Amino acid sequence: MPAELLDGIAVARAIRDEVAVAVAAQKARGVVPGLAVVLVGEDPASTVYVRNKGRACEEAGMHSVTIRLPDTASQAELLAVVDQLNADPAIHGMLVQMPLPKQCNADEVIRRIDPAKDVDGFHPINAGKLLIGEKDGFAPCTPAGVIELLKRYDVPTSGADVVIVGRSNIVGKPMASLLMQPGVDATVTICHSRTRELPTHTRRADILIAAIGRPKFVTADMVKPGATVIDVGINRVDEPRAKNGYVLAGDVDFAPVSAVAGKITPVPGGVGPLTIAMLLKSTLVAASRVRVA
Amino acid sequence: MPAELLDGIAVARAIRDEVAVAVAAQKARGVVPGLAVVLVGEDPASTVYVRNKGRACEEAGMHSVTIRLPDTASQAELLAVVDQLNADPAIHGMLVQMPLPKQCNADEVIRRIDPAKDVDGFHPINAGKLLIGEKDGFAPCTPAGVIELLKRYDVPTSGADVVIVGRSNIVGKPMASLLMQPGVDATVTICHSRTRELPTHTRRADILIAAIGRPKFVTADMVKPGATVIDVGINRVDEPRAKNGYVLAGDVDFAPVSAVAGKITPVPGGVGPLTIAMLLKSTLVAASRVRVA
Repeated sequence: MPAELLDGIAVARAIRDEVAVAVAAQKARGVVPGLAVVLVGEDPASTVYVRNKGRACEEAGMHSVTIRLPDTASQAELLAVVDQLNADPAIHGMLVQMPLPKQCNADEVIRRIDPAKDVDGFHPINAGKLLIGEKDGFAPCTPAGVIELLKRYDVPTSGADVVIVGRSNIVGKPMASLLMQPGVDATVTICHSRTRELPTHTRRADILIAAIGRPKFVTADMVKPGATVIDVGINRVDEPRAKNGYVLAGDVDFAPVSAVAGKITPVPGGVGPLTIAMLLKSTLVAASRVRVA
Repeated sequence: MPAELLDGIAVARAIRDEVAVAVAAQKARGVVPGLAVVLVGEDPASTVYVRNKGRACEEAGMHSVTIRLPDTASQAELLAVVDQLNADPAIHGMLVQMPLPKQCNADEVIRRIDPAKDVDGFHPINAGKLLIGEKDGFAPCTPAGVIELLKRYDVPTSGADVVIVGRSNIVGKPMASLLMQPGVDATVTICHSRTRELPTHTRRADILIAAIGRPKFVTADMVKPGATVIDVGINRVDEPRAKNGYVLAGDVDFAPVSAVAGKITPVPGGVGPLTIAMLLKSTLVAASRVRVA
């Protein structure tokens, strides 16, 4: 029996609908949730992604601002934009689209964002609050989306052995922070390029989360029968017959793994759509924390 | 063959000697590293511990201040002391001794400490920097001491399977943060009270770190032959024949486990002495970051 598909599009749709209802409630108390996205340069993937964020905001009834800087923008210009958004009462959440051109220092930019508006959850204080279990920060959108997906498909996490492959600051580490908290209660292992005998770890996972960035890295022999497999990877793979000359592939070798797994996310249509949905949700949360006189 | 003892007293002595040399260098450039410890109330264990910190500072040539507040001190009084120490240029590191009396809010106190003086590493921004891998924060002293112990005894961590039992904010979580960083490169699993089949995890550990707070919790059958066992627990166990009516016991059942393990820390004399040594080292680091005109 092939694995059950975890439908990220449907879950994202449900979250966005819930956010739209809550946005209306915020408006009723006089707060219009507002998200600002800063895009430096014209990277095609980033441009598409930023446009999608803007559209999703508007569809949810939010205020949306996109600020475009040329790819020659200096660090000082970028920081000035961040400062201006920090001070703007119409903006509750903001993010600076990565990657930045090389003259810009991403770490400094992230630290400059007001943590109360850091809906990407990349500021160190928000990373710390997530790890410590303080509730007044923001979680990075992709791992937060994975948690939502697991919850809405009733995948039990308490006592589950979860193996995360990949230790990035935007997926692997915050994913571990979320999963180990009391209430979620997973037993988390973080694997990476230096892990010895990786398959012995992945094969004991009740929930396997792949966030490596290498297409089809996770093969069927690495998965325990019946496991839930979450594929965070989105890789471009050359494919001359495809319209753009490439296809998207996850970190998981989908067809063979789905013959072994109990539940699995497709790519595309799995974790990807959840990222924008959770960004909207975090912006809503940021707006809901604003006190109205 | 019984396990090799990892001598925390000797390693702490070496660290404190190195710190004393570096303190002299700081003094030569006009900076006297200063540590302030705030003690609220008269808990006997805390009082001893604070006194030991003060003595260790003085022995290393540091400036040491202990501020005592009555156990009736209000949150406002405590925050005022923190503010004063934040502003004091003679103080480079400070900590507020836990636990606090119940009228005080520890989270708020910790957040009030200037992160640049937070040598306990408990401020959320320092927890976040540790997880992200930014080098300009502070690590909590006990897990930092464990890393030093492993390094100085040449216990390899790269690719090693490390299992941490306990997910506290002062030991388990920051221990995981330190061990998963590039350069340390352990494959880390964090276990806790909800973990299923705990022994199956602990038995695969090359390095097993016990931070549970329950005496003799880790038994010989839970340890892989030859593993390195680090015991962070310090528990009082009633013992009528002892002078004080109790003895100190770790989280590890020492005698039988030391017959199985390759290396092991005793309690006392293992991790404990490293905590104060690392506190001195962090205070030195804080002082060394001060710019002199």
